[in-house]
Amino acid sequence: MQTLDARLRDIADRMNAALDQLLPRVQGPEARLLEAMRYAALGAGKRLRPFLTLEAGAMFDADESALLRTAAAIECIHTYSLVHDDLPCMDDDDLRRGLPTLHRQFDEATAVLAGDGLLTHAFEILSDPATHRDPQMRCLLIAGLARAAGAHGMVAGQMIDMAGATVAGDMAAVARMNRLKTGALIQFSVEAGALIGAAPDDARHALTRYATNVGTLFQMVDDLLDVEGAAAETGKAVDKDAAAGKINLVSLLGVEGARQQVRLLAAQAKEHLALFGSRSKFLSEAVDFIVERRY
Amino acid sequence: MQTLDARLRDIADRMNAALDQLLPRVQGPEARLLEAMRYAALGAGKRLRPFLTLEAGAMFDADESALLRTAAAIECIHTYSLVHDDLPCMDDDDLRRGLPTLHRQFDEATAVLAGDGLLTHAFEILSDPATHRDPQMRCLLIAGLARAAGAHGMVAGQMIDMAGATVAGDMAAVARMNRLKTGALIQFSVEAGALIGAAPDDARHALTRYATNVGTLFQMVDDLLDVEGAAAETGKAVDKDAAAGKINLVSLLGVEGARQQVRLLAAQAKEHLALFGSRSKFLSEAVDFIVERRY
Repeated sequence: MQTLDARLRDIADRMNAALDQLLPRVQGPEARLLEAMRYAALGAGKRLRPFLTLEAGAMFDADESALLRTAAAIECIHTYSLVHDDLPCMDDDDLRRGLPTLHRQFDEATAVLAGDGLLTHAFEILSDPATHRDPQMRCLLIAGLARAAGAHGMVAGQMIDMAGATVAGDMAAVARMNRLKTGALIQFSVEAGALIGAAPDDARHALTRYATNVGTLFQMVDDLLDVEGAAAETGKAVDKDAAAGKINLVSLLGVEGARQQVRLLAAQAKEHLALFGSRSKFLSEAVDFIVERRY
Repeated sequence: MQTLDARLRDIADRMNAALDQLLPRVQGPEARLLEAMRYAALGAGKRLRPFLTLEAGAMFDADESALLRTAAAIECIHTYSLVHDDLPCMDDDDLRRGLPTLHRQFDEATAVLAGDGLLTHAFEILSDPATHRDPQMRCLLIAGLARAAGAHGMVAGQMIDMAGATVAGDMAAVARMNRLKTGALIQFSVEAGALIGAAPDDARHALTRYATNVGTLFQMVDDLLDVEGAAAETGKAVDKDAAAGKINLVSLLGVEGARQQVRLLAAQAKEHLALFGSRSKFLSEAVDFIVERRY
């Protein structure tokens, strides 16, 4: 039986190959744009979202190619959000995954445009019959991704986060911000796998609850890393949130309170998988992976 | 018989009503984002693209609601592109349609996010069964819009334009830039109408050629306005291109050469409509409208 480590490496490799094939070739007078899109998307991403889509889909014997192309579209969205979030007018980050952020490696205009290009390309991938022969399924995937990523999802979360320094934060408001900014796309990653696999309703509901917990967990571990981490470990500048006076769950719960919450969420996430038995082995082990900060 | 003036006002009114209904309500902690999206989309836009979609579709008795929703999605894309193009790291414009640009009225981060939200929302609109009952048609519209707007279309054109000051421009390169930056979305606006109307092949080809000419014409008139116009007339700062050392067709052809080319393109555009007879009355008259700078 494959280990989770091996499975993750395998998925990351296949994701890079898929993105390499699906992103436009670098050519023509717009070469700089296409090069920038590839620089952002083909880096050392940990591919959590593709892992979730592929694992959720595999439980229901979903078509591998449909899963991989859908995961690539989700990864285009995730990548564009990082590129725009790193901009000087947003989080103003110089490093991402240990490398210069896109606007540092290229320039701001190219970073805005490469993000726009990746965002648009996600929908081009999903609308293509090669993703799924049934146009109804393609429309469901497009609608789901647009909702998760848009002005009622990820973009809304980022807006609330930007306003964070000036907004009086309470637990409910911060939890909602996390759910939108990080949770919505993680949740859709799992749902897309279940959708393509035509999973029955009870299975879909259990997976959605799992995904909700994983999203919160992931954001909380990230906030803990922000407080505790060293630049060498995270590959990006640390404690930017505190420096910006931003409120997150760690600043509200305290480090110990947050750690306790992480353990609780991890246990809940695994409970939601109980109904799948050994088929959900990797999804279950991934929870520990996130808790142990190996993601 | 309605005049073109009345028809344009009618379409602009219906477009504003459609966008007002389709854009998210302003509420919640992300209210600033939603307000910004509405500020950008519900302004005094001239709605050239919706006019083209609705007129092209009307020639084939296409469903009005499908045309209107598709035109709204195209307008979301057009609007986001203006918001991002106006950013300080791009064209750095303070005025748009006589009002402060989005990043001047709100701030840069909000402008980036509102653009992202509008871009994403376009695909949410198109994926909705309310746009067209046939998912295959929805996928065709999504694929066409993504191609026209993305890294092989509008975004590529903007990238080339940004690099314009440093690139040795020849006529072919500038024409290609215009075709991508402005032409691709104008062409799709016409094609979408023909697609929804299930227009026969010869009609679609004629309309595509018309749209190509209109796109070039529109950009050339805009470049002429940039050189000749006064701030009061265009509602934005003038001769930014020349100030930035950018090359456009007017700087290559000279003002007189460009004017002559405008007349030629206008005549060609109308010729492509010959096959439709009086059904294409408004599409034909719109060409003169553009030439006379009433657009």
